[in-house]
Amino acid sequence: MDLSNFFNATNIAIIGVSRNPNKIGHVIFRNLIDGEFNGNIFVVNPNVQSVLGYISYKNISQIKENIDLAVIAVPAKQAIKVANECGRKKIKDLIIISAGFKEIGNNKLESALQKAIKKYKLRVIGPNCLGILNTKNKLDTLFLPHYRLKRPKFGGISFVCQSGAVGSTILDLASKEEDGFSKFVSYGNAIDIDESDLVEYLTTDENTKVICLYVEAIKDSKKFMNIMKEATKRKPVIVVKGGLTEEGNKATLSHTGSLAGSSDVYLAAFKQTGMIYAPTLEDMFNYARILESSIRPKNNRIQIITNGGGYGIICTDAVIKNNLRMAEPSSETKRFLKKNFPPIVIINNPMDLTGDATTERYRLSIEACLNDKNIDILLLVVLYQTPLVTTDVVDVITEFKTMHKKPIVVVSTGGEFTQILKESLQNNGVPCFTYPENAVRSIKALVDYYL
Amino acid sequence: MDLSNFFNATNIAIIGVSRNPNKIGHVIFRNLIDGEFNGNIFVVNPNVQSVLGYISYKNISQIKENIDLAVIAVPAKQAIKVANECGRKKIKDLIIISAGFKEIGNNKLESALQKAIKKYKLRVIGPNCLGILNTKNKLDTLFLPHYRLKRPKFGGISFVCQSGAVGSTILDLASKEEDGFSKFVSYGNAIDIDESDLVEYLTTDENTKVICLYVEAIKDSKKFMNIMKEATKRKPVIVVKGGLTEEGNKATLSHTGSLAGSSDVYLAAFKQTGMIYAPTLEDMFNYARILESSIRPKNNRIQIITNGGGYGIICTDAVIKNNLRMAEPSSETKRFLKKNFPPIVIINNPMDLTGDATTERYRLSIEACLNDKNIDILLLVVLYQTPLVTTDVVDVITEFKTMHKKPIVVVSTGGEFTQILKESLQNNGVPCFTYPENAVRSIKALVDYYL
Repeated sequence: MDLSNFFNATNIAIIGVSRNPNKIGHVIFRNLIDGEFNGNIFVVNPNVQSVLGYISYKNISQIKENIDLAVIAVPAKQAIKVANECGRKKIKDLIIISAGFKEIGNNKLESALQKAIKKYKLRVIGPNCLGILNTKNKLDTLFLPHYRLKRPKFGGISFVCQSGAVGSTILDLASKEEDGFSKFVSYGNAIDIDESDLVEYLTTDENTKVICLYVEAIKDSKKFMNIMKEATKRKPVIVVKGGLTEEGNKATLSHTGSLAGSSDVYLAAFKQTGMIYAPTLEDMFNYARILESSIRPKNNRIQIITNGGGYGIICTDAVIKNNLRMAEPSSETKRFLKKNFPPIVIINNPMDLTGDATTERYRLSIEACLNDKNIDILLLVVLYQTPLVTTDVVDVITEFKTMHKKPIVVVSTGGEFTQILKESLQNNGVPCFTYPENAVRSIKALVDYYL
Repeated sequence: MDLSNFFNATNIAIIGVSRNPNKIGHVIFRNLIDGEFNGNIFVVNPNVQSVLGYISYKNISQIKENIDLAVIAVPAKQAIKVANECGRKKIKDLIIISAGFKEIGNNKLESALQKAIKKYKLRVIGPNCLGILNTKNKLDTLFLPHYRLKRPKFGGISFVCQSGAVGSTILDLASKEEDGFSKFVSYGNAIDIDESDLVEYLTTDENTKVICLYVEAIKDSKKFMNIMKEATKRKPVIVVKGGLTEEGNKATLSHTGSLAGSSDVYLAAFKQTGMIYAPTLEDMFNYARILESSIRPKNNRIQIITNGGGYGIICTDAVIKNNLRMAEPSSETKRFLKKNFPPIVIINNPMDLTGDATTERYRLSIEACLNDKNIDILLLVVLYQTPLVTTDVVDVITEFKTMHKKPIVVVSTGGEFTQILKESLQNNGVPCFTYPENAVRSIKALVDYYL
């Protein structure tokens, strides 16, 4: 389904913009202004003349310009009337933020909305949702203030999320972790457009490199299977499922108003479609980070290079536990490094550059491993606490990364100083992790997707 | 073994303090000054008159004052001579930072050191180690500069670590996460004092509430078993084992110079002693956080309170997966809350205060659950992104926490704003987590230790 109009609308109408700064419609309006939305905003509220200097229209039909997208933030009961008005004005695409439909048992209202959709061939995201965020043009319908919820920078991850709370908090976290997002959708009750439609659209979106999906219940499983099978051929699709246990499943009933299926069925379906199942949101986030930025590995043989012996051991354990393979560096590589390194360096796998490692040792060993046919993926542990690792190690790694020869993944554990150097790497497209096991599980996801 | 003199020494001698600010001895000396060590520092270096305004003694015997602790940072070969000199001056406690012993195959030097230990009845931490950190008196022998490695604040976690790299980077990370540490030891080759001695001492240390241990190889397993069995009766001891896979085990050989045993043997031993096994450093850190601050739960029935439905479901899944139980709130609790809450609130488990939750809703629901005999542990999801949760929700939770009625654990996912409020809670002893699964796995560790 081509949903690009939702994300690239130029003329947006927000229906239900109170002057009260705490009301949902007002927050959305303010966020579009504060976020410097790259388009025109029209405000509808019959009770006032203007809001924040913008003319307030009595209703949608009073706006003379063509409206590409209507964002509806009025109480649920009024939303039906507004949807019909939009239909009459030939606005096809609506985001209905309003809650109070099926999710609280109000099926009557949900059917009335369905009627309007049919009558005017509307396309609706929602109701009971946060709507969308496009980090490129700053189209943003999330009714959460910027100071509480930072928006992530532009990047290649897109996220389709049934739960507004899960989605928005992950975006906020991503802003802190310097992960880049393209598009986000909280689709709520999915009265019309559902998770499958959204994923299908995102596979055609050139700014989206990886698709993340959080679902609780899937209504049309046949459609889901068909679309996901095609989607995963084009891009990695990572899925987290809420309500996999019986008790969690029961909780989804009161949350979304639709009962989810058994966990075995879901996990089998994910596998069959080629989706990458992430057991936790943390894993989803980590997998997305590596899949966004990494090239395809030739095989699953990993070389570990570290300046802390303990981390070499922990990484080795993680590689084996995740059914990946430890690379065996060629005798040529070993000979070359032996010639250039002091005897204290352990030239093996893990390769321990030791606590007095210099940036030059990293440069030499990374280069040798990139040229070694026995090695497919480089896992670098870079501990910035030791004094001889100069900060330009970050530039060295970035340069090798831009050569796109092999996937390079970095583990750095530490505080403020480490964080600053990690951010520099992340900003240059080198996936970084705090803990070895998270890095290796993510490498596993990369390998599983491509091999 | 009473090792308190190591951690509470007043007169410290650092042997091998170069004027070169990059040399290990100099960094240790500088760190003690910069860290405002609460004692007297004596510097030994035969080649200079003074360093940073401190008199430099030609050798340890020239110091007239009694020395409680000698920190040796000379090259390995000279360390033997220095150890003997310390023995002659009746300094019993030495930290030998110097590397170049057994870990690089130099067994001769290791035996020579052993001889000196026997002859003078020395007690030695090291060689090939970072030594110790006591956050209370600022005794700190870590040769890593403060700007690269921040020291954590004072608190109840102590960490005994075979790997200097693992230990120091975790301390650095802890400084960022606002976790409080009491004592840290990197014990290196353990020529004399080993992990068992250190854990035994920490069980008697009143500032230590939880002991963390990272080991790669255990030489004296009988001693280990005996001491750990006693230790875990007094305090929780969390253990991470590097080299559990065959390949990781091989890597420990080149790292520590001693071969570790099979994984099954280790895991069985940990279980038998009552230690809490953490599969990753991240888990160790999380378990320590909750065990440091939480009271003993009466049982394992957990009540989830959330302002985001999706998180309620994810938490429920995690509770069930970790073999914990979902509490069933009493009809009294339900009746009381129904009376006070709008109908949109789902009064159940998970209890969904919904996206328009106020601080008052948290106050009422937490209070009711603390008084409900059907509930043992409270897992609060507090998403600060929604506008009606005022920032004083942090004070409300802190106040309930200080009543010490039941363990209270908080999950908050987000960016900067969230981070600030989380830090406030952490500083008041409320354990906080970014992801639900980490929180629930930590609750499981708490339950397993106490029940």
